[in-house]
Amino acid sequence: TLLEGVQAHFTPKLLVGKKILITAGATMEMLDPVRGITNLSSGKMGFALAKVAMHMGAEVTLVYGHTTAAQPLVTHAFHASAASEMHATVMHHIADQDIFIGVAAVADYSPVLTAEQKIKKSEETLTIQLKRNRDILAEVAALPDPPYCVGFAAETEQVLEHARHKRLAKRIPVIIANKANTALGSDNNSVTIIDETGEYPLSSADKTSIASKILTHLYQHLSSFNNNK
Amino acid sequence: TLLEGVQAHFTPKLLVGKKILITAGATMEMLDPVRGITNLSSGKMGFALAKVAMHMGAEVTLVYGHTTAAQPLVTHAFHASAASEMHATVMHHIADQDIFIGVAAVADYSPVLTAEQKIKKSEETLTIQLKRNRDILAEVAALPDPPYCVGFAAETEQVLEHARHKRLAKRIPVIIANKANTALGSDNNSVTIIDETGEYPLSSADKTSIASKILTHLYQHLSSFNNNK
Repeated sequence: TLLEGVQAHFTPKLLVGKKILITAGATMEMLDPVRGITNLSSGKMGFALAKVAMHMGAEVTLVYGHTTAAQPLVTHAFHASAASEMHATVMHHIADQDIFIGVAAVADYSPVLTAEQKIKKSEETLTIQLKRNRDILAEVAALPDPPYCVGFAAETEQVLEHARHKRLAKRIPVIIANKANTALGSDNNSVTIIDETGEYPLSSADKTSIASKILTHLYQHLSSFNNNK
Repeated sequence: TLLEGVQAHFTPKLLVGKKILITAGATMEMLDPVRGITNLSSGKMGFALAKVAMHMGAEVTLVYGHTTAAQPLVTHAFHASAASEMHATVMHHIADQDIFIGVAAVADYSPVLTAEQKIKKSEETLTIQLKRNRDILAEVAALPDPPYCVGFAAETEQVLEHARHKRLAKRIPVIIANKANTALGSDNNSVTIIDETGEYPLSSADKTSIASKILTHLYQHLSSFNNNK
């Protein structure tokens, strides 16, 4: 749109020369050919970050799952449905990235068995066995020469506590905490950026504005981070 | 759009004076505040039927779950997320309907427990217990003075056999069989209408065209059906 063109024009080109990989949306773990376990992520926050990163001059690779939002124009875009596909797609493209931002709500568990045909309702009850999925963000952060890694923590309670714990457990420099109940699917978000220098709350605004503030913060932090590396 | 206005103008007004309740889209059974079990239904077939029924002059009540398609303009529209909500919403509005078309992919099972807070990944494996949901279509068909009931069977194998069985098991006059793998999420569909007079295959076409043919068939069948009731 014209508005986006104007916004893009006036966005400071902080990320020229940077390669950024962003994941967005929800994964879906299929139980049979038609049913699956997913989550309420709409892809809007990840798409907003991808759009603004493009405006800031970055080369953006977007790996997106199930979304209800309009997909932004990026340098490279790849669809991945299951968490295992998203893991494979991210690992395939991570090698020369400068920044990795994991915004997608990736399933922690997937069914041990996926039925080849649609499950018929014969029983009164049904039991599904799930197994733990690989942790994409933690694996990227553990690479020999990892990109600068940014995680998202969408929590329903003790948001900051869970996010602080996640940042340390995954050994990533930055995590962005938000409240799942109000963030998922909404056009607005309010987040807290957490890094080793402190905690930076951003009050509620549309996801494009939040994305601008996050990327500006990351740019500044990355500069000092690389100097101290 | 202009095209839709023209289409609406030239659509025979077969359903003037008829009240039709249509369900569309996927239900979502929440496991916790952010995760749930859903399916690949996009709502496109149900929305196409609702749109064409409006063009044909019907009073359309639409009960829709999770969808990725653009919602058509109808007489009344209600959102329902879980199968239990969809059941309650349908039952609340069914009383004076002439026709009920259940297109929504309603979950057959829902979790016995829904966690109040987001489930943390502490264990290597997880087990989910599911219980059978109520069968909306069968319950509507079993009402003392039921509307003319039309079901959809989206199957991955033995499509016609499963659909024939479903029509008899749910005691409904008509079922529309389609192949889940090719129908769900697609803009096109190919279906077979099954009623007590025979089986009527409609070859692949966009869902609006399929909806027109289905509603024309239903109109003709309903006329003879009411005469023989």
